[in-house]
Amino acid sequence: MNNLLFTAESTADGIVERDFTVNGVPGVLWSPESGADRAPLILQAHGGGNHKKHPAMSGRARHLVHGCGYHVAVLDAPGHGDRPRTGHDDREVAALFAARAAGEPEGPIVVRYNEHLAKLAVPEYHALLDALQQLTEIGTDGPVGFWGINMGTAIGVPFVAAEPRITAAVFGQHWPDVLAGFAEQITVPIEFDLQWDDEHISREEGLALFDAFASAEKSLHVNSGKHKELPRFEVDSAVRFFARHLGGAVKTSV
Amino acid sequence: MNNLLFTAESTADGIVERDFTVNGVPGVLWSPESGADRAPLILQAHGGGNHKKHPAMSGRARHLVHGCGYHVAVLDAPGHGDRPRTGHDDREVAALFAARAAGEPEGPIVVRYNEHLAKLAVPEYHALLDALQQLTEIGTDGPVGFWGINMGTAIGVPFVAAEPRITAAVFGQHWPDVLAGFAEQITVPIEFDLQWDDEHISREEGLALFDAFASAEKSLHVNSGKHKELPRFEVDSAVRFFARHLGGAVKTSV
Repeated sequence: MNNLLFTAESTADGIVERDFTVNGVPGVLWSPESGADRAPLILQAHGGGNHKKHPAMSGRARHLVHGCGYHVAVLDAPGHGDRPRTGHDDREVAALFAARAAGEPEGPIVVRYNEHLAKLAVPEYHALLDALQQLTEIGTDGPVGFWGINMGTAIGVPFVAAEPRITAAVFGQHWPDVLAGFAEQITVPIEFDLQWDDEHISREEGLALFDAFASAEKSLHVNSGKHKELPRFEVDSAVRFFARHLGGAVKTSV
Repeated sequence: MNNLLFTAESTADGIVERDFTVNGVPGVLWSPESGADRAPLILQAHGGGNHKKHPAMSGRARHLVHGCGYHVAVLDAPGHGDRPRTGHDDREVAALFAARAAGEPEGPIVVRYNEHLAKLAVPEYHALLDALQQLTEIGTDGPVGFWGINMGTAIGVPFVAAEPRITAAVFGQHWPDVLAGFAEQITVPIEFDLQWDDEHISREEGLALFDAFASAEKSLHVNSGKHKELPRFEVDSAVRFFARHLGGAVKTSV
């Protein structure tokens, strides 16, 4: 039995925000103020160094709630947000900053640290989904999507590979080393984002991870620009992707 | 002076369709029935073996006219549609069909034949734009886009490279052999479509052509599927691309 506790609730601009913990892990659930009954659910996972309510998370949630009427949930990743940082977290973050300062490749550190975090986070996401599907406004029979870029992909790819309730997913911007083997187990439609001038992830690495997905229907969106320059319009594109696969009209502007 | 002659006009479903010839080359201009004054213009070029009113052309025009209120024009390519076929056209088409029947690569024939047709078509598109900008409902100061996939890219890349009036373009699905040198001269924003399982154009060839564009802002959309399986939702994406760059709200559904 998963212990879902709501700890705060507020409503603004047509969106209900509920803070919660599930088995002690803090998360947030955003829902439409009206018309939320039995609406599709999107699980998000945030990027490295961020947290569940980072503007990238709340901004995407806003598009999904306003655009499609979906529920959207995010957990703080281990060592992130409101969760404690272990000595191991501190050492890995220090190693990443040292590599960055020295102009050395960040990839090997990110890959191994994200793999470590994903092993902790994946069971938390399964438990999150179990718990949210007990809510009457979500239920067990509605479609569920997953959206995570960067570290959100490092968590999401092994999660979706093991979670048959996810029927469509948006991933991007990670290395194939650890993830390709999980991607080969994923057959649901995916949209995948890459940056063509990523200073950390080579084109070959990014394309190799996209190529690994077994999905019959998969789309790759490559944009010019560096690692952190993923264009805002890819958010609109992801929202339309979910609307195509999870149902519901999309209300969005260019 | 370009000789623009309108030869037929009809209106249906909010779209005015005008057939014309410009210097004897047959084309079609689709416009919104209302609100057409000084609206942006999209020039399209059709694919090999097709013609100016193929459903791919009229369907995209419908999205652009209804979705954005734009004008949309297409010419029949040399040897296509209502234009005469030369002995050279007949020989190249026969060579293509023979290669196809023999299971031999079509690329070398398509590349050389499209290069030949582009040399004829590019000046025709410059003249088309000159002529259409004389119309009061289009004018010389509005933004102009270009949209052409397959043979439309073979014509469009050299055309846009030489035409500073084009401010955004959608291309895709062609080989880099002839076109990469022209792509290196293009700096306007582009969106580029590739099929990941294209049986004619290898991934390396498709990516090489995308990479060649000098545009600071460029997006690559890769989808799973064979050469002719470009998903319909890429039409919606292209319409939103033009709306972002040429202005105007987009009214579209997923």
